[in-house]
Amino acid sequence: MTPEDLVEIELIKRLKYKYLRCLDQKLFEGVGECFTEHATAAYSGGVYSFEGRQAIVAFLVESMGSEKFLSSHRCHHPEIDLVSDTEATGTWALEDVVIEETFDITIRGAAFYEDRYVKLDGVWLIAHTGYLRSYEEIHPRGSIEGLTVTASWWGTNGKSSLGGTPQ
Amino acid sequence: MTPEDLVEIELIKRLKYKYLRCLDQKLFEGVGECFTEHATAAYSGGVYSFEGRQAIVAFLVESMGSEKFLSSHRCHHPEIDLVSDTEATGTWALEDVVIEETFDITIRGAAFYEDRYVKLDGVWLIAHTGYLRSYEEIHPRGSIEGLTVTASWWGTNGKSSLGGTPQ
Amino acid sequence: MTPEDLVEIELIKRLKYKYLRCLDQKLFEGVGECFTEHATAAYSGGVYSFEGRQAIVAFLVESMGSEKFLSSHRCHHPEIDLVSDTEATGTWALEDVVIEETFDITIRGAAFYEDRYVKLDGVWLIAHTGYLRSYEEIHPRGSIEGLTVTASWWGTNGKSSLGGTPQ
Repeated sequence: MTPEDLVEIELIKRLKYKYLRCLDQKLFEGVGECFTEHATAAYSGGVYSFEGRQAIVAFLVESMGSEKFLSSHRCHHPEIDLVSDTEATGTWALEDVVIEETFDITIRGAAFYEDRYVKLDGVWLIAHTGYLRSYEEIHPRGSIEGLTVTASWWGTNGKSSLGGTPQ
Repeated sequence: MTPEDLVEIELIKRLKYKYLRCLDQKLFEGVGECFTEHATAAYSGGVYSFEGRQAIVAFLVESMGSEKFLSSHRCHHPEIDLVSDTEATGTWALEDVVIEETFDITIRGAAFYEDRYVKLDGVWLIAHTGYLRSYEEIHPRGSIEGLTVTASWWGTNGKSSLGGTPQ
Repeated sequence: MTPEDLVEIELIKRLKYKYLRCLDQKLFEGVGECFTEHATAAYSGGVYSFEGRQAIVAFLVESMGSEKFLSSHRCHHPEIDLVSDTEATGTWALEDVVIEETFDITIRGAAFYEDRYVKLDGVWLIAHTGYLRSYEEIHPRGSIEGLTVTASWWGTNGKSSLGGTPQ
């Protein structure tokens, strides 16, 4: 590993962070920019599998597009290996939380991603992404009395409605 | 991006990590060291806005100073851009948990930070920090029967009081 | 800090990520590869203390080996200092979740690690690891009505059994 390799690795991390930020902010055009045209995805051990940028983005829009779908997808522990000047692989540890206000459920989970990246015209893109769950759990939000959403990106413009318990 | 840029970026990440560690360990002098004298903060979409290092730290001491306020503020996905030799911007994804033992509540949330940094006398400092919530939620801890704090930095010197279920 | 230092720091991060991934995937041989022969561990403020790679790994196998023990150990905020060409220290912020299906409990916690690393024959290894809890909490899973595990690495091969709420 050389300092120059680290630059490539940092650019790949940035790609992943852009993808995840755009996902949770519902900037789906930005999500699309992260993939090659013929990228493949195999989310949740392949339960949700897609071929092509268009199919991947269409799935994400359909499943996560609602402003009642509040999500946090965080990827950690990047183990990125440069295979050639234009190819790399990456393993990541995912933690995700979904608050689904329409169905009044919370989903929490952890997983490991296995990605492949390619560099096209000087820009790193996701060629394949997919993960297997360490665990996933769900509960009706009504099961916890008094559980209340006090802020959301869309509902409150990102501001807390809690007055006296500052963050 | 050059290897030398990566050094600056790593130093900015270290600044953020020091800020967050000092915050959760209640080392408020260390928190203050992370800001410029005239730094500004706009937490929670500006609900909690402050001008000047002194005002920011005073707010943090007041809102988070109690040893009954157990917090975990974690920032992920650094997207740091060097604007000049002495200026940079940073986007971060926050996950935070607060267990407030006095009021017997838990607050969980996710957010995106937008920071500005400046390098003064060779040291990177926070010139502006602020975040918007993706979501925030609260619940009375009594709503989950048997929910028990089994360790805390102050209450148990960081040791678990669980005997048989090691971490 | 130099670009060459960053390479060493990245290699130390990779060591920690391998350790954590192997832990949650129950690849205990891989866990063992991360430690020096005479490594020491002081988990949970020293409640769980061990001397030697063999003792550390034996403890981890015993406490986390069950496929009913679903865990996510994530380390953040690396503050890694190179002490010499072959010695380094590291501070990390831990977030961990354990779903213990046998005892039907969930444990969540946060902590700060203080590690020491050494480079032997060109490979960074953990010489000492240990953490203090910011907090730790436990609850019986039955206290949240309808709380259900919908995927696990071992139980469902990492696939979600939720049909209609894609991740």
